[in-house]
Amino acid sequence: MTVQEITSSQNPRIKELVRLSSQKKERSLSGLFVVESAKLVEEAALAGIGIEALYRTDEAAEKYAPYLAPAQAACGSEVRITRPVAEKLAASQHTQGVFALCRIPEPSLTAESLSPQGRYLVLSSLQDPGNIGAVLRSALAFGCDGLILSDDCPDLYSPKVLRAAMGGVFRQPVLVSRDLPELIRSMREKGIDTLAAALDRSAMTSDEARLDRDGVAVVIGNEGSGLSTEMIEACGKTVFIPISARSESLNASVAASIFLWEMRRRG
Amino acid sequence: MTVQEITSSQNPRIKELVRLSSQKKERSLSGLFVVESAKLVEEAALAGIGIEALYRTDEAAEKYAPYLAPAQAACGSEVRITRPVAEKLAASQHTQGVFALCRIPEPSLTAESLSPQGRYLVLSSLQDPGNIGAVLRSALAFGCDGLILSDDCPDLYSPKVLRAAMGGVFRQPVLVSRDLPELIRSMREKGIDTLAAALDRSAMTSDEARLDRDGVAVVIGNEGSGLSTEMIEACGKTVFIPISARSESLNASVAASIFLWEMRRRG
Repeated sequence: MTVQEITSSQNPRIKELVRLSSQKKERSLSGLFVVESAKLVEEAALAGIGIEALYRTDEAAEKYAPYLAPAQAACGSEVRITRPVAEKLAASQHTQGVFALCRIPEPSLTAESLSPQGRYLVLSSLQDPGNIGAVLRSALAFGCDGLILSDDCPDLYSPKVLRAAMGGVFRQPVLVSRDLPELIRSMREKGIDTLAAALDRSAMTSDEARLDRDGVAVVIGNEGSGLSTEMIEACGKTVFIPISARSESLNASVAASIFLWEMRRRG
Repeated sequence: MTVQEITSSQNPRIKELVRLSSQKKERSLSGLFVVESAKLVEEAALAGIGIEALYRTDEAAEKYAPYLAPAQAACGSEVRITRPVAEKLAASQHTQGVFALCRIPEPSLTAESLSPQGRYLVLSSLQDPGNIGAVLRSALAFGCDGLILSDDCPDLYSPKVLRAAMGGVFRQPVLVSRDLPELIRSMREKGIDTLAAALDRSAMTSDEARLDRDGVAVVIGNEGSGLSTEMIEACGKTVFIPISARSESLNASVAASIFLWEMRRRG
């Protein structure tokens, strides 16, 4: 493989990468996204994400050689970039100088493929990309059968979600839904028990709900406003993580992670 | 109470508030910190935090009147500020226009007051203020007997920690330690079982450790590098949240929260 070189941050290919990192619309139109850091580039390659091109400084090529090998083997184009170009592309000043231009994969989970025996976590209108990423990371750790997100959640392929998810975006079934209440109704029709996570202390507790079973989905709402009445009604049941009377709520990614922990298949 | 007015963001009192928000050193020297947002100002007042002065726009005084009442009753000085002054003080453009200058309380937990029957969570060299805040929030929700932090963790009274903790900084015993390995050793001498959270799959699992008991402390390490060998040796035992082989680790605040959830007093 020949290695090309880009030394100007005004290069059109660099400008395209910057747009792909910053704009969801650019990603949707092109079907492409950008991964930063040696470890995440390795994760993407090992998970079978299509890699169009690898961009790296000479320093990074040496320092992170083992991490870059799978991406180098999988892609047809390697581009040497200078440190100023790397800083132009980077989310922070302390960049490793490694980027991959990747193809957004086909959805790994569809409404039709949801299983009556599955265990699912559903995120409705979350706002914070760090929370989405942390939940993806927890879901990978505790092994649920799929994550479902409403399409107003932060984009999975944004740099902040990718970074916080630590590879969790690449390695598990995820479905982004345009009409979550409708999807919830179809899950109920399949026999999946859909539980709205509520701040209502009269709701069923997570112990009472016995989440360690097949055919269950827990639905988490927005950080500030929780779940809409429509979503709660669509679910039909509510579930509550018992917390101290002195406390009002948990961080959304913490609540989601505790539900995932309770839903995990044991032994 | 008379209400003063400040219309210039160059006012020395405003400059002092900006320094207190941005610099830990300023907070340490003065023993003061700044709280932003109506809800947090209310939490501080209700928790008995000493409030030197309340700063608010006229719009905020009207809109958030019920939240401001406890702080107004508790403090001797109310200052009307203009919108540009509020924006100068604020962490984001969408500020509510409410700030309180508060006194850092005396430490609510000391090495001497740690109880052999207590349940403690210990954070060693965490880096992310959002993680520290989320753990404080979870600790308040699940009711542990105290949080212990090494003094290289983000400052509790920084705006980011205060915001993420949602009042958790004000309402529970916290100890900041200059010598965490030494503190851990003194906890062990008191008979507290100190468990280092490890990424070592050969460690005791969280189920095996039976964390729902008195006289136990779980120690969480840095987001990137975990716990030092010195800390692990000081603890004497290790504990592990079982995760999928496909996953390397959990977000630090998620891991801490799952330990707190497992440590909670039930029923």
